Amino acid sequence: MKLDRYTPENLRRPSHGLINIHPIQRGGILTREAREVLLEWADGYSVCDVCVKGRVDLLKTPPIENLKHDVAEFLNMDEVRFSAGARHAMFAIMRAFSENGGTIVLDSLAHYTSYIAAELSGLNIVEVPSTGYPEYDILPESYAQTFERVREETGSNPVLALLTHVDYRYGNVADAVAVGKICEEYGIPFILNAAYSAGVMPVDGKRCKAAFVVGSGHKSWAATAPIGVLAMAEEFMGSVLSTSKIKDMTEKVSPQKELGLFGCSPVYGLPVITLMASFPAVVERVKHWDDEVRKSRYFVKEMEKIMGLRQIGRRPTEHTLNAIETPPFYEVSKTHKKKGYFLYKALKNKGVAGLQPGLTKSIKVNTYGLTDEETEKVVQAFKEIARENGLEVDD
Amino acid sequence: MKLDRYTPENLRRPSHGLINIHPIQRGGILTREAREVLLEWADGYSVCDVCVKGRVDLLKTPPIENLKHDVAEFLNMDEVRFSAGARHAMFAIMRAFSENGGTIVLDSLAHYTSYIAAELSGLNIVEVPSTGYPEYDILPESYAQTFERVREETGSNPVLALLTHVDYRYGNVADAVAVGKICEEYGIPFILNAAYSAGVMPVDGKRCKAAFVVGSGHKSWAATAPIGVLAMAEEFMGSVLSTSKIKDMTEKVSPQKELGLFGCSPVYGLPVITLMASFPAVVERVKHWDDEVRKSRYFVKEMEKIMGLRQIGRRPTEHTLNAIETPPFYEVSKTHKKKGYFLYKALKNKGVAGLQPGLTKSIKVNTYGLTDEETEKVVQAFKEIARENGLEVDD
Repeated sequence: MKLDRYTPENLRRPSHGLINIHPIQRGGILTREAREVLLEWADGYSVCDVCVKGRVDLLKTPPIENLKHDVAEFLNMDEVRFSAGARHAMFAIMRAFSENGGTIVLDSLAHYTSYIAAELSGLNIVEVPSTGYPEYDILPESYAQTFERVREETGSNPVLALLTHVDYRYGNVADAVAVGKICEEYGIPFILNAAYSAGVMPVDGKRCKAAFVVGSGHKSWAATAPIGVLAMAEEFMGSVLSTSKIKDMTEKVSPQKELGLFGCSPVYGLPVITLMASFPAVVERVKHWDDEVRKSRYFVKEMEKIMGLRQIGRRPTEHTLNAIETPPFYEVSKTHKKKGYFLYKALKNKGVAGLQPGLTKSIKVNTYGLTDEETEKVVQAFKEIARENGLEVDD
Repeated sequence: MKLDRYTPENLRRPSHGLINIHPIQRGGILTREAREVLLEWADGYSVCDVCVKGRVDLLKTPPIENLKHDVAEFLNMDEVRFSAGARHAMFAIMRAFSENGGTIVLDSLAHYTSYIAAELSGLNIVEVPSTGYPEYDILPESYAQTFERVREETGSNPVLALLTHVDYRYGNVADAVAVGKICEEYGIPFILNAAYSAGVMPVDGKRCKAAFVVGSGHKSWAATAPIGVLAMAEEFMGSVLSTSKIKDMTEKVSPQKELGLFGCSPVYGLPVITLMASFPAVVERVKHWDDEVRKSRYFVKEMEKIMGLRQIGRRPTEHTLNAIETPPFYEVSKTHKKKGYFLYKALKNKGVAGLQPGLTKSIKVNTYGLTDEETEKVVQAFKEIARENGLEVDD
């Protein structure tokens, strides 16, 4: 064992001191308030100092029980639990609906963890197609068509439907209200995966007729990993939050322990306390989403001044995460001595981190929470790299 | 929403500034090294800045892939993954053995999360009895007897056996080598739940013939919550680390994604980086376990000078977690104006936190990592409270 590779001096973040435009990083950057409580609550099980009931969501000190209710109100849902990430929240939901097998319908832009949660639960998966290149739109009526198809092929309705509110590939904002209405008409419980929306932009679960809203604390609520937000409508609490039946065997397993959350959800330290400390700022920041979209559209407009670059997905963009086709950078990479890594390395030299090393055909960038000055710095970095490599910039 | 309850000023740990003797807190207190890396890695998905393969355990920067191999070597096992707590690790194991139902045999001192993981996996649970009051010993031969009983009643061997290496009630150190030998004779894969041992005392998985060693980072490896250590013998990697079969449906779900870990384990931030930063100190500290036991025995000896107090569980204690019967404190509580809370409050006034508020019939104390001076301070606090309430102390 070469233990010196783990010393603090050797553990520097690759993005240290740089502007990080990685798609999954922007919404999880801690607020000042969360940073302030870090040292106080960093040790292991810190929030469990005064646990009486054996469930982290019932703690009064720190006020996690209050937080649970406030987060439910914030999302306009009835009940909330915290989980080990959105992936765990989706599994906790799906396992409650899969006892007799069954089919889940999800959009073809869904995150891989939606598929994994369904596979782990033993559900059959059917995809709702998108409109394909270049917009990759998910049309609400495709849900109705897919429900009909499942009914025809299996003889019964899907047991669940899932829509990715904002997808991780194009940053498309799906029409959750329309999809929710269709799910309601078919009587199919509707999961809104809001990992890239709740916490950064307004989400109203009841308006979307959502049975469940799933959020990601480390992705979009300025919390340390891992923490998921599992919000639900009252009628599904009984099944999804079903409790242990073991109590007749031993008094050790309290009948309050919720099975899908491993008895007591494993967020009993920094994840839940940083989500809590950031929560007032998160409640405030979603009110300023319009300004984030303005900045994002400016970014796209400027990037497209590099000839041959084009934002794909719905246009104009409605989110801060954007995919941009960059065929001219790919052409450069063919003869560049650093090959496909030239773009990543050139950006790093100009103070920008977060591009996937080696990729040049298309890139994904998230501008959430950048100041106007930082956005401008990123734009100029791309333009300079374009010019330095003989590409045309229409400035 | 009363958002001011979540401000940093209002988020003070109940144990702030006190010596914390809570059974679950001692082994999770961060090392100096882990504290040093906190701010650098606190944001959400921090360790994923340069992720190429889509699995946190394959990251080269920071060196999580190295850490995985080093932790396997440290526990003398073949392979390691990190999970959302020991509870998640146990579920990941058990779900791989439960496809056709089956029975798991576990000791009756097992933590509730062992039962929950089995219930969530759909396994039938059969307990190995302990010898009962006052030692609550788990005799290895009881495993053989229980295996025979299961065979008689169900017609087949249990699919798994679990032993709690150190239990959370009495801090008994079970004879893992003897139980492992019996499991091997019966051909039953053996899970050693080392949540209260690995990371604080030496654990040698192969010597125990363990198929799996499960550890808890936030309980015993000086890491922030949640992180579990799932160590296994090579022959079980295929089943427990089985990967997604969805690849034919979409190229989004890589065939590298491990199902039981939700595709990529949700420790992609502070949990794994603090475990990493603490790891060199953890490797060193287990060598000094003897000194921890010495301190613990001193603590028990001094506590038993308060007349009527007695350590229960195996004697002399072999661990830092101890249960002590305190009937004289219960007698005091009957007439004390603070009732059952007097002991908790009196200790707090003397600078000691971690007792469960309201309990006086018996207490659990963990002295792990206390200095001799701190141990003495805790002993004196108890003795003073005893004297102040008219109890006899044989000093």
